Amino acid sequence: MAFQEIEHILHFLKHYASFPSVSCDTAYEQGMCDTRRYISQFLKQESFDVQEISTPKHPILLASYSKSPQAPSLLLYGHYDVQPPEPLELWQSSPFTPTIRDDILYGRGIADNKGAHTILLHALCQTLHKNPSFPWNIRVLFEGEEEIGSPSMKGFLKEYGDSIRSDLFLLSDTWTCDEEHLSLTTGLRGLVTLECEISTATLDLHSGMGGPMPNAAQVLAEICAQLHDAQGKVLVEDFYRDVQKPSAEELASLQLCPLSEDAIRRDTGIEHFAPHEHSVLYAQKFLPTLEINGIHSGWEGQGVKTIIPAKAKAKISCRLVPNQSPEHISQQLSSRLRQLCPPWAHMHIASIPQGKAYSFPLEDSQDKHSSHPRLSQAFHMLQAATRIIMGTPLLLMREGGSIPFISTIQELTGMNPLMLGFFTQQNQLHAPNENLSLQMIDRVYRVFCRFFEQLSNMES
Amino acid sequence: MAFQEIEHILHFLKHYASFPSVSCDTAYEQGMCDTRRYISQFLKQESFDVQEISTPKHPILLASYSKSPQAPSLLLYGHYDVQPPEPLELWQSSPFTPTIRDDILYGRGIADNKGAHTILLHALCQTLHKNPSFPWNIRVLFEGEEEIGSPSMKGFLKEYGDSIRSDLFLLSDTWTCDEEHLSLTTGLRGLVTLECEISTATLDLHSGMGGPMPNAAQVLAEICAQLHDAQGKVLVEDFYRDVQKPSAEELASLQLCPLSEDAIRRDTGIEHFAPHEHSVLYAQKFLPTLEINGIHSGWEGQGVKTIIPAKAKAKISCRLVPNQSPEHISQQLSSRLRQLCPPWAHMHIASIPQGKAYSFPLEDSQDKHSSHPRLSQAFHMLQAATRIIMGTPLLLMREGGSIPFISTIQELTGMNPLMLGFFTQQNQLHAPNENLSLQMIDRVYRVFCRFFEQLSNMES
Repeated sequence: MAFQEIEHILHFLKHYASFPSVSCDTAYEQGMCDTRRYISQFLKQESFDVQEISTPKHPILLASYSKSPQAPSLLLYGHYDVQPPEPLELWQSSPFTPTIRDDILYGRGIADNKGAHTILLHALCQTLHKNPSFPWNIRVLFEGEEEIGSPSMKGFLKEYGDSIRSDLFLLSDTWTCDEEHLSLTTGLRGLVTLECEISTATLDLHSGMGGPMPNAAQVLAEICAQLHDAQGKVLVEDFYRDVQKPSAEELASLQLCPLSEDAIRRDTGIEHFAPHEHSVLYAQKFLPTLEINGIHSGWEGQGVKTIIPAKAKAKISCRLVPNQSPEHISQQLSSRLRQLCPPWAHMHIASIPQGKAYSFPLEDSQDKHSSHPRLSQAFHMLQAATRIIMGTPLLLMREGGSIPFISTIQELTGMNPLMLGFFTQQNQLHAPNENLSLQMIDRVYRVFCRFFEQLSNMES
Repeated sequence: MAFQEIEHILHFLKHYASFPSVSCDTAYEQGMCDTRRYISQFLKQESFDVQEISTPKHPILLASYSKSPQAPSLLLYGHYDVQPPEPLELWQSSPFTPTIRDDILYGRGIADNKGAHTILLHALCQTLHKNPSFPWNIRVLFEGEEEIGSPSMKGFLKEYGDSIRSDLFLLSDTWTCDEEHLSLTTGLRGLVTLECEISTATLDLHSGMGGPMPNAAQVLAEICAQLHDAQGKVLVEDFYRDVQKPSAEELASLQLCPLSEDAIRRDTGIEHFAPHEHSVLYAQKFLPTLEINGIHSGWEGQGVKTIIPAKAKAKISCRLVPNQSPEHISQQLSSRLRQLCPPWAHMHIASIPQGKAYSFPLEDSQDKHSSHPRLSQAFHMLQAATRIIMGTPLLLMREGGSIPFISTIQELTGMNPLMLGFFTQQNQLHAPNENLSLQMIDRVYRVFCRFFEQLSNMES
């Protein structure tokens, strides 16, 4: 382990992740602000020009380090916002007090995404220190709305798309199978989110009136119970109509993944998977989903409050696969919910199609004579760096999750990102006790350092 | 209106209801304490001896005012605890800052039960001021656990039952039909409460893993959706087996109730009643119920948190009618829930049979030559006082709600309470904007004053 450099990364990351930058809740405005200030200062110290660009919600940071107009260009991406820390009682150490236990660093954002872009950025800066003539123009883009679906990125890209369009685009915000393998992410699921509120009366009623009175909690439970069949298939019209089946090559890649269903069971405590016709990994990577992210109605506090709730709310999201239209699925889901709602209950739906699925031009990237020659060379350099540092091949993996702006950036700028995935199931992203092992931090740092070293020598 | 006396009641009640005495939440310990101190001081000023009796949760206050060992005895009851104020955002004025708007007093506990026993107590004290030779020994019992099912009352009654057993037992904690009528409550429903928690994984999962993973919110929704049939009948074994059908006399009483289904619709915003074979009022008074009081799982905050919840919780309660066993229904409900739970999900149930249903010995009370001659006389006096002050007959009404300790006190002491019901649907008990009209406060106060005046002359 390169101790001095790792210590430097840990010192930076512990401070950086102590600012609570929860983008979905306005109560965290100060944490968002402190986070931006901290990363801006770092970039300025490293001789970057830093611009803070206003958006309707959280500002975007755009930093640049220019060599010469003729040099090829490299874009790095990260997001400085994090998921909410709740439920707080399940954290073993405070979510915004990063803490090391048994060579693992714990805290909200330690992996997703502060940790990931801290490693990437430190590897880049180390390369620039060692090799001041590194022949690339560099741009770094940090957004603060990834965890809420990047609503401002489209507007930003329309205005700044030309100025950030680069020969290479690199980021780390995706998964791999275990600590022994890194993955290149070859696809991302799209995302549709929706809030559905049921109202059955103008006020909560005393349950002594109960029996004939409608109960909003029960109405919503009955609706939610009719969104999947017994095999776990989603009961929304057209839900599977446009699903693009995986290619033979993608299926072969899946076979290389060492993650077993037993390992998933062990890591999650799950005892049963929905009886799909496909394997768990197949379903996670190649099929769309509908999940209830939250359901809330009535009394939640201690003890008994004998009311008949008048309102009930569900938060629902769908992950989409390539070729599905978020707008169409969003409409079909709303129609299904309205159709399930009794005529005497009121339903309010707020639906947000967050983004399309994305797939990486895998064949192009593997062929030096492709239309993306630099992408192809960089892809091979990343494969080589991974094999040398990790001792295992770089896996080519589709991802169950979504980074909605990736398909937007591809659409508006034509760039295809190299996404180095290294989060594992143990990292508990979006959950209590989010973490990253010091071993993985060290390995990924060394892979990136080697990759950047090789980039110095790329033929243009 | 007896302005001076009403002003005195309002002054007392506004102060009394400003203490947040929420019994189900330990955060309100201070409010419980302040409430007891306030009412104790009042009783002491009125020459009562006051005892504060410890219980495992909230102390009971027992006050006495003794004439002579030969005098007949009168027991008054009230509860100084209140329901939680949530949801706070729906209150038009702060729940613990009692406020008058358009001759209506608003605040948590203004009706249930601080307002009710404030009126009763002030009428009694006014009687004692006017007629210092009022020939009754008086005891006043205030408990602080009614809203959580009176768990300490059984223990208290076993120890103090003999000392509080009285010739008459009077309280106001029940309903009537409208502001023009008062009711004598001839029955109360029993209560069973239960918390059911589902767990499907050891942690919330990133919904990018979704599809084949179990979702606790969905599992619980599916269970809750199978507790009623399409006609609103409860799908728990034996649920209706022991239900005592109403007598012809009780059915006749129901016909006198001027509360129409249209009025219920108008007051509650409800557009539809479960299609029972019976009327709404019949179902509320003579049938048992199962209601979901709360359902909670996953993300509730602003915006999107794309998780698969690992835990989900429901609070469920059942109202029972005379002849049903709370223990049996509680067991059958737990069995039903376990039977609906998939084998790969974990279910934890905390079930509390709160109390049996109660019915008043109506025939006995109407017959002067009955085994309860004083009850019979008092009943006629209350009828007469109501007719004179209200100009309408005292209705004989079964109640949809529960006061679990009433059946316990009947069982352990043999007393049958005279319950004067005056809460109306407009009073929003247990809900935001709980209230009582100044007109009703005045009317009930005058009915009680007249009733106590008559009690002075009761033949012994």
